[in-house]
Amino acid sequence: MIAITSHNTTDERIQEIVQFIEKQGVTAHVSKGEDRTVIGIIGQADPKLAEQLRQLSGVEQVVKISKSYKLASRDFHPADTVIKIKGVEIGGEQLVVMGGPCAVETPEQIDEIARLVKAAGGQVLRGGAFKPRTGPYSFQGVGVEGLIMMAEAGKKHGLLTITEVMTPEYVDVCAEYADILQVGTRNMQNFDLLRKLGTIQTPVLLKRGFSSTYDEFLNAAEYILAGGNPNVMLCERGIRTFETYTRNTLDLSAIPVLKQLSHLPVISDPSHGTGRRELVVPMTKASVAAGADGLIIEMHTDPDNSMTGDGVQSLFPDQFAKLLVDLEKLAPLLGKKFDTQKETILV
Amino acid sequence: MIAITSHNTTDERIQEIVQFIEKQGVTAHVSKGEDRTVIGIIGQADPKLAEQLRQLSGVEQVVKISKSYKLASRDFHPADTVIKIKGVEIGGEQLVVMGGPCAVETPEQIDEIARLVKAAGGQVLRGGAFKPRTGPYSFQGVGVEGLIMMAEAGKKHGLLTITEVMTPEYVDVCAEYADILQVGTRNMQNFDLLRKLGTIQTPVLLKRGFSSTYDEFLNAAEYILAGGNPNVMLCERGIRTFETYTRNTLDLSAIPVLKQLSHLPVISDPSHGTGRRELVVPMTKASVAAGADGLIIEMHTDPDNSMTGDGVQSLFPDQFAKLLVDLEKLAPLLGKKFDTQKETILV
Amino acid sequence: MIAITSHNTTDERIQEIVQFIEKQGVTAHVSKGEDRTVIGIIGQADPKLAEQLRQLSGVEQVVKISKSYKLASRDFHPADTVIKIKGVEIGGEQLVVMGGPCAVETPEQIDEIARLVKAAGGQVLRGGAFKPRTGPYSFQGVGVEGLIMMAEAGKKHGLLTITEVMTPEYVDVCAEYADILQVGTRNMQNFDLLRKLGTIQTPVLLKRGFSSTYDEFLNAAEYILAGGNPNVMLCERGIRTFETYTRNTLDLSAIPVLKQLSHLPVISDPSHGTGRRELVVPMTKASVAAGADGLIIEMHTDPDNSMTGDGVQSLFPDQFAKLLVDLEKLAPLLGKKFDTQKETILV
Amino acid sequence: MIAITSHNTTDERIQEIVQFIEKQGVTAHVSKGEDRTVIGIIGQADPKLAEQLRQLSGVEQVVKISKSYKLASRDFHPADTVIKIKGVEIGGEQLVVMGGPCAVETPEQIDEIARLVKAAGGQVLRGGAFKPRTGPYSFQGVGVEGLIMMAEAGKKHGLLTITEVMTPEYVDVCAEYADILQVGTRNMQNFDLLRKLGTIQTPVLLKRGFSSTYDEFLNAAEYILAGGNPNVMLCERGIRTFETYTRNTLDLSAIPVLKQLSHLPVISDPSHGTGRRELVVPMTKASVAAGADGLIIEMHTDPDNSMTGDGVQSLFPDQFAKLLVDLEKLAPLLGKKFDTQKETILV
Repeated sequence: MIAITSHNTTDERIQEIVQFIEKQGVTAHVSKGEDRTVIGIIGQADPKLAEQLRQLSGVEQVVKISKSYKLASRDFHPADTVIKIKGVEIGGEQLVVMGGPCAVETPEQIDEIARLVKAAGGQVLRGGAFKPRTGPYSFQGVGVEGLIMMAEAGKKHGLLTITEVMTPEYVDVCAEYADILQVGTRNMQNFDLLRKLGTIQTPVLLKRGFSSTYDEFLNAAEYILAGGNPNVMLCERGIRTFETYTRNTLDLSAIPVLKQLSHLPVISDPSHGTGRRELVVPMTKASVAAGADGLIIEMHTDPDNSMTGDGVQSLFPDQFAKLLVDLEKLAPLLGKKFDTQKETILV
Repeated sequence: MIAITSHNTTDERIQEIVQFIEKQGVTAHVSKGEDRTVIGIIGQADPKLAEQLRQLSGVEQVVKISKSYKLASRDFHPADTVIKIKGVEIGGEQLVVMGGPCAVETPEQIDEIARLVKAAGGQVLRGGAFKPRTGPYSFQGVGVEGLIMMAEAGKKHGLLTITEVMTPEYVDVCAEYADILQVGTRNMQNFDLLRKLGTIQTPVLLKRGFSSTYDEFLNAAEYILAGGNPNVMLCERGIRTFETYTRNTLDLSAIPVLKQLSHLPVISDPSHGTGRRELVVPMTKASVAAGADGLIIEMHTDPDNSMTGDGVQSLFPDQFAKLLVDLEKLAPLLGKKFDTQKETILV
Repeated sequence: MIAITSHNTTDERIQEIVQFIEKQGVTAHVSKGEDRTVIGIIGQADPKLAEQLRQLSGVEQVVKISKSYKLASRDFHPADTVIKIKGVEIGGEQLVVMGGPCAVETPEQIDEIARLVKAAGGQVLRGGAFKPRTGPYSFQGVGVEGLIMMAEAGKKHGLLTITEVMTPEYVDVCAEYADILQVGTRNMQNFDLLRKLGTIQTPVLLKRGFSSTYDEFLNAAEYILAGGNPNVMLCERGIRTFETYTRNTLDLSAIPVLKQLSHLPVISDPSHGTGRRELVVPMTKASVAAGADGLIIEMHTDPDNSMTGDGVQSLFPDQFAKLLVDLEKLAPLLGKKFDTQKETILV
Repeated sequence: MIAITSHNTTDERIQEIVQFIEKQGVTAHVSKGEDRTVIGIIGQADPKLAEQLRQLSGVEQVVKISKSYKLASRDFHPADTVIKIKGVEIGGEQLVVMGGPCAVETPEQIDEIARLVKAAGGQVLRGGAFKPRTGPYSFQGVGVEGLIMMAEAGKKHGLLTITEVMTPEYVDVCAEYADILQVGTRNMQNFDLLRKLGTIQTPVLLKRGFSSTYDEFLNAAEYILAGGNPNVMLCERGIRTFETYTRNTLDLSAIPVLKQLSHLPVISDPSHGTGRRELVVPMTKASVAAGADGLIIEMHTDPDNSMTGDGVQSLFPDQFAKLLVDLEKLAPLLGKKFDTQKETILV
């Protein structure tokens, strides 16, 4: 960590800052420049020190050199994390495709979609039972019943299941029914939820907050890892920008950046990332080309009548199946494997 | 609500869209343009209809004409909401100043700061017992003990108290000790928390999400109002932009906009909105000039040693007191009253 | 175009608005809703009408239904535009690779880089003679001498050349030496420059402004097209967002969006789009997967010593060559052709 | 300046980096941390060095400690710059109000508006003769004729005049007719234009680019200052954010920040900053409260029929006059003087 003084800081004040630093049990290393002075802090500093330094008068800027997250960092865990769930590996050679509706609606709906996801070569069934909605009068999901419907559909068709959990109170029941728990973009910094997810071992797909930096994203993952759950995958799902034509701006650079900064698997969500069906196909392929370990894609048998209104970003089943055939060809050129014919048997 | 078709939509498809609309019990009103067709929807539509229309093929754009929130809207509640708490009125003529540290640290700290807030003319004591922190290794607040310390300090010095609640589970205990509950920026769309706050009557200060639009903000307020709690105040606290010199970009236009769209009181937070002590004074004055009903300002007796590192944005007690004297002069020119000498007696 | 009235607009005011509209020679079509009234404008309206309506009292919102650009729109020009330059086709089946240094430095530098671009299979040599720099004390380019050096290198090695032009005054000299003129991101709305470029026939690569919407981008292209120059290609080069780890956020969704809204070729610039060498390779592949017609990539023989400091985003020659071999394999899976062995002979 | 190495940089590579630095005639000062090494650069470095260091392999981050602009910086010019034009002082005690239409339309229009600006107490007449418009089919201004009309109106009513110049070619003619030249937001980084403005002495109002950081803004000012023209004022006019309800987000924190970083006068433009007439009044007052030296406000006698469509953000003359009366009361509380009755006589 480095503290940079402001333009006219006196030598006396610099001495006081140095004393403040050394009281914390670390070493201060002063470099006088022509204009400002730089104080390097050497040793294992308390995480709070950066914040404390920033608020000292005479300090203009504090630059962290070490990262604030450790367990999520590739610096301290060079090998890729591969999460194994009932024989499916996420983060390894295999490309993983999660498909399904925005929301679970009826047993028939989720069963039929599960059948189509499996037939197309997908490994995971997605579907929301609890839906975070901007306004209170919109459809809020079918709740626990939806968890049960999805678990049954997944079991019948040999698919893992993933569903969103919105509040600590529901973590246990969601973990009872689903193989992977999703933290939605609005909850990326719901720290009580993250802490609760750190206490279990169920894999978590953590979506990037729609205005969160990579650093904040990895710190959110750190909450879960630090709690004791090592099974975290990161999901880029689009960020908020000035452009309104697309629902979000899918930040595909996040994929190689996160793979470089962290060892955790990275999944892309081109459905929420674009909000437009016609963009899902090219952006899925682009995600794989950028190095994604997996995709989470909305697909619906009757998107015109989806209950959340997210049908506009859902693929039709035939588009979904054709896309997976294309991925099968692309994957080997990008260091991944994907086989639409091979049946994944859950163990 | 209006649906606009895409360039080459056939008459046949337009007829299907009209039929879809009329099945929902509302009337469709077709205007053929040279290039595209516009379909007006007249009648009391289900809130989901906009979303459903958007996903129909042949529909390029859907424009909502009525707002999705009702209870928060000034259209349906023209008079200003004034929230009365133990004799203090928020949203009326009186300018309300909430002051205090980022975090409650010790009984002595909060007692001394409460004394200074009161002496300067403030009416509300702020302080966090539960702190939302980007990383898991930072100071997370002192918890329930902090609630008790703050309640005692408030009582002793005749100040209302406000504190942040982060999860539904803690709403009841926070409401037991504090007069106003704050929803932080990261939780603006923590819908389970909002729903829980709708079930009580304790006033809520809802902070704008750092990347939330006015529409999303008012929809979040609507969750609380729709649950049955009418005592909601809105707080602008800075949004995330490309500029990194300030911690956030304080969007002061939000103040007159929210006052126009809604009848709820609007509070400004220049401390988090700027993240720099030297900007708090001018931005407080600017907030009042823009029409704020109140301010929430960080003040600390020893900002160099604050436990959260937010000292960098905390005023020193003498700056705080001087600022309130300045507000006393400014307020009457801006349609507000503020009197640093008059002692507010809580009832 | 549609005008939507505000909540309490009287019938009388609505009549005045209608009269205002009909005075412009178009038809107004009134739909009364429960809450607001919608006025459709039918006929060929003057482009200024939207702006005039927006400023009428009683009008809350104006929604344009037809797009403000015509010549750039696919609605009115369904077939892809293919720009042919000395036998190279941009916007057709062929994937086009433009490579070279950020800035032309010396005759030896640009000659050697040209040789490497050609050897790797690229078709166009990029290089800046005039450089737009944030501060006045940075290297500003070698000027007209650079144009000459680059023209010679291009001719010798059989490559087209592209260079940036910053001001109308230099359009003619740049067009004399280069095959393609580039408008940089900071000049996307330098309307005098765009107008000047509309008066010549030299192909123009128009970079998206770093905070410009798709609509503004296509309107900027419209300036050139409306002036009489049909040879415009669009270039996504990253937008400004809150994320600072990357220099910009490369918005790859722009590629399929622009291909859908417009018939013009779309080029991707992963070098400026990311600002980091290690991201250029994955983002180049992702650009092709998203449907780009071409790439513009920085490559330098000695990036540690590049004069603009953009070496940090320049590939080394061997990385560039290997990337083009990879593109050769990827392209056919994405509807494009690219052959690193086939020598393009300029005609 | 500081260079920070990446995690695994070898001692050998660090030695090479040090040698690279010392070859540039400055001193390298190495601090080894536990995780990374910090290299301080001491001495007068070439402005390009930061960029060169950033591109060295083994360097992860470069932090500039001194600012890249000098002439614009308060560090090197502690006293406020006061620009004196025909007896009007900008940047001193006097609050300066510039008012007028978006565009000059006819001699009668500009004459009548000038009369009203003067009567209300304004000192400067604004009006565009050359208009930067998003699309080529919108009204582009009346050109040189407009300059003449405005100069006459200014002279007749005793007002300074300000008008926008869009391209270097027109600088001389604009400077012939107007007292202050405005650089619009889209041209803040039109470096050829800035360089040309550096060669004259006419005062320049430089608008912040709608996505430009403070640092980029001050570097743009530096171009003009470095060219030899010391008469630059900075204008905050709103930045682009995700919020679309307002045309831009007026960043009032920019005012105290720019006053702190620089000695140049700071003007606020609440008209473009909000894009909505009803927000101009509160945001003008807030601008003054934040410390602005002046305001530039759109006012029109017939905003419903303004030719640019910017009438929606133009005040009516009576609103403008009332606002200036309010500013007269506010100014003294904020360290400024403004007198609506005192007639400013141009000298």
